[in-house]
Amino acid sequence: MNVDYVNPFLSAAVKVLKTMAHIASQPGKPYLKNNQVAEGDISGIIGLTGEKNGSMAVSFSKECALKLAINMVGKEFNELTNEVANAVGEVTSTIASDARADLFMRGYSFSASIPSVVTGEGHTIRHISQGPTIVMPFETEAGPFFVEACFDS
Amino acid sequence: MNVDYVNPFLSAAVKVLKTMAHIASQPGKPYLKNNQVAEGDISGIIGLTGEKNGSMAVSFSKECALKLAINMVGKEFNELTNEVANAVGEVTSTIASDARADLFMRGYSFSASIPSVVTGEGHTIRHISQGPTIVMPFETEAGPFFVEACFDS
Repeated sequence: MNVDYVNPFLSAAVKVLKTMAHIASQPGKPYLKNNQVAEGDISGIIGLTGEKNGSMAVSFSKECALKLAINMVGKEFNELTNEVANAVGEVTSTIASDARADLFMRGYSFSASIPSVVTGEGHTIRHISQGPTIVMPFETEAGPFFVEACFDS
Repeated sequence: MNVDYVNPFLSAAVKVLKTMAHIASQPGKPYLKNNQVAEGDISGIIGLTGEKNGSMAVSFSKECALKLAINMVGKEFNELTNEVANAVGEVTSTIASDARADLFMRGYSFSASIPSVVTGEGHTIRHISQGPTIVMPFETEAGPFFVEACFDS
């Protein structure tokens, strides 16, 4: 995969978590998804079309998603409610749109679908493509989250 | 939502399950997703862009997904393995592409992302949009599956 496609998602994730949810995150070392599967409790998924067809996902542990929603909505959450799902969808959408703007500046034009948010303890996501899936792990004070991106080769 | 957008997914699902996996399916009555949430054990999700931005999902019970993979791959499966996920991804992708061709004939042009396949018992999918989500339930001899579609209003 062209590494040009990946870096914009990494910097967008750090920036969006900080500005939208006041959560500081440290990026870990990106890896290719083989047997190492990121398991989330709630994930936002967005389809990408244009330069290449692809998809991206942002997968949160329950704790991290609750913290995100608490900071964004300004009230307490203990369960993965509709409001929490909306917050995850909004963050996913903003990461995709920030990354797309960056990619556009680099000469790559992508369109983004509406986000789908999946809830369910310990679910896993596979992106079905001939291309590799890059997983970018992040640490926050509320636990880890993962940004995944995959494009047709 | 323009009903023109929905019917092509309904007929594509029946046709694709029949031709790719030799599974006959009876469409039930479509409904708007409010509190009625389709819970799948494995789901294919595809983002759509173009005429409108949207997303579609095909959500299977474990039994129905295993039957699908057994018929498509021609060997026995008892667990939701990578091969089963690939089969679900392929079916989802073919339903989307069949529906897109039909929509194109009606004057609506959509592009489709690569499929993401989510596994995890009893997960739920929410499409984050101002538009309604239409759920189309189907019955098969191996249990039910659900096609969901949502477009920006």
